[in-house]
Amino acid sequence: MKKVYNFNAGPAALPKTVLEKAQQEFLNFQNTGMSVMELSHRSEEYESVHVKASNLLKEILEVPDTYEVLFMQGGASLQFSAIPMNFLHSNNIANYILSGSWSEKALKEAEKIGNCHIASSSKDKGYSSIPSAIQLSKNPAYLHLTSNNTIFGTQWREFPVLPANVPLIADMSSDILSRKIPIEDISLIYAGAQKNLGPSGVTVVIISKQLLEQCHKNTPTMLNYQTYAENNSLYNTPPTFSIYMLSLVLEWVKEQGGLTYIEEKNHQKAQLLYHAIDLSEGFYTGTAKKDSRSFMNVTFTLPTKELTQLFLHQAKEKGFVGLAGHRLVGGCRASIYNAVTLESCKALVEFMDNFQSNNR
Amino acid sequence: MKKVYNFNAGPAALPKTVLEKAQQEFLNFQNTGMSVMELSHRSEEYESVHVKASNLLKEILEVPDTYEVLFMQGGASLQFSAIPMNFLHSNNIANYILSGSWSEKALKEAEKIGNCHIASSSKDKGYSSIPSAIQLSKNPAYLHLTSNNTIFGTQWREFPVLPANVPLIADMSSDILSRKIPIEDISLIYAGAQKNLGPSGVTVVIISKQLLEQCHKNTPTMLNYQTYAENNSLYNTPPTFSIYMLSLVLEWVKEQGGLTYIEEKNHQKAQLLYHAIDLSEGFYTGTAKKDSRSFMNVTFTLPTKELTQLFLHQAKEKGFVGLAGHRLVGGCRASIYNAVTLESCKALVEFMDNFQSNNR
Repeated sequence: MKKVYNFNAGPAALPKTVLEKAQQEFLNFQNTGMSVMELSHRSEEYESVHVKASNLLKEILEVPDTYEVLFMQGGASLQFSAIPMNFLHSNNIANYILSGSWSEKALKEAEKIGNCHIASSSKDKGYSSIPSAIQLSKNPAYLHLTSNNTIFGTQWREFPVLPANVPLIADMSSDILSRKIPIEDISLIYAGAQKNLGPSGVTVVIISKQLLEQCHKNTPTMLNYQTYAENNSLYNTPPTFSIYMLSLVLEWVKEQGGLTYIEEKNHQKAQLLYHAIDLSEGFYTGTAKKDSRSFMNVTFTLPTKELTQLFLHQAKEKGFVGLAGHRLVGGCRASIYNAVTLESCKALVEFMDNFQSNNR
Repeated sequence: MKKVYNFNAGPAALPKTVLEKAQQEFLNFQNTGMSVMELSHRSEEYESVHVKASNLLKEILEVPDTYEVLFMQGGASLQFSAIPMNFLHSNNIANYILSGSWSEKALKEAEKIGNCHIASSSKDKGYSSIPSAIQLSKNPAYLHLTSNNTIFGTQWREFPVLPANVPLIADMSSDILSRKIPIEDISLIYAGAQKNLGPSGVTVVIISKQLLEQCHKNTPTMLNYQTYAENNSLYNTPPTFSIYMLSLVLEWVKEQGGLTYIEEKNHQKAQLLYHAIDLSEGFYTGTAKKDSRSFMNVTFTLPTKELTQLFLHQAKEKGFVGLAGHRLVGGCRASIYNAVTLESCKALVEFMDNFQSNNR
């Protein structure tokens, strides 16, 4: 089997032991004689998978009992609409912090539903840093932010603390489960699974019961968070295989040592790459401001577009996958989600050093 | 490995050769060194899977060039809202035919959006037959029907032909790909995948380009059909593994001999079971009227609730899975989607005969 180093931005690398386990029981899940994906979502066998995924998420992320964990579909992009449809009314204002393309998209969907206000933005800095100086509107429905910006390679180190009556909503698609987070400070967390949680096709929502009560009752059933809370995310057929894969990834995180270990390892991986960039004497340039650097997506450029192309071409030949920057910004990006090993990062640093020696 | 006969109503049985192929390349898709679910949705390798699934659907269902095939998420239940959000305006009326629980749910979502009219209903007959005598409202936005009713075991044999300016919209979640259908007579077909198409997690939409032009421009991006048509269903990350499984199921259908073969085989399977019911001298009673019987979901009852329970209990012990009727109606139901073999149906008939002999 070809040796590859998977730095895809999502869908991304999954832990090898997780894939092996899923392969091994692919045709015969727990001696049922069936694949997980052939089980009824109303069967005991599937329900135990479903409940395990939910319970492990609560345990690993230390989710308090005052919150619900929901499994939805449609990715973060559908949440961009579900959030204002549930919580934005004619008499309040949705507040958004703009830190990159995803937050812009979230704002755009909210603007279709009601009145919006930009509470802070780093757009004028080309989104190279996390915005500061938040100014809320009058009567804010909520404040929305994107905790990690995959395209620009920036990440919130600490979340803003808001007045008690203002719910903080965070799109954590690209850094959920990568570090400890103060759940109590956030009223709604959502995340497409395809970075740290599992394959694409399932969206995790963690919502405070207090916010849950505020869902607009005329919201379409499948976009109303109460539908999922009241039916254990089994109102209709959920993406059963994706949730099964999520349960295996969560088991893996727990076996690794939970978020304490994962966060430390992610820190090491990021430091390794940022050091290589910072010690390259300007050959590699990090595109994010140092205090805003993401531990998930390391973005950098080379001295010329031609060198960038040569770098990406040679990297691909050596088995490095997914190093091209997002099509909006170009350059290079190494996405180092939980399942990307320290060894892969070391191999990349070695390749970067060699490439610099050969092309300086 | 335990021998099971999978009659689940969905998620349901998948072809064994499809599961074996997916298992075999689970860790190393086409020598990429990665699982399909680790591929970027923007990679050439994934895109070839995505395009293959779309092209095979068009080929097998003979979809004309005047239609688009889209891959969405959220199941049929999310389509219940997407349809009126796109096509129901303040100056037209959504028409619904009620043939069971799913069409009731579809209507309920449309009523949140605008004015609705029930064009026909068999509710007064306990949904035991397909409604007739359609009466459209003035200025109809569309007419919606459910082509196969999993819970009550009824199915439309032929679709109503409407005036040229009235789009017919069909929820074909439970019988798409089971028989030839006159696509040109239907403006929008949608189907959750988990019966005949693959695992849960992907929803197929087949929409005429004419109807596509009528999508309301203020519809949330992820619910607007134009978003999917304009971006080849790659606006955001699609459920890549579900679409991959869909592509394998479609290859299998083609290898089997396409819809001509599949339809004939489904007919045989259904006839086998209905004959067993009709020849049982009233021991087994089909719950659907004969002219409305579904070729996908064979629903029946036994003389008493106690015998039904005993039947289900003994069937389970013999390896028959999923024979309990839907929790709304009770009784028994054998779902015989494409991947359920003739041999499984024969085994069930044999079991039914034996059970009757032992319990008459």
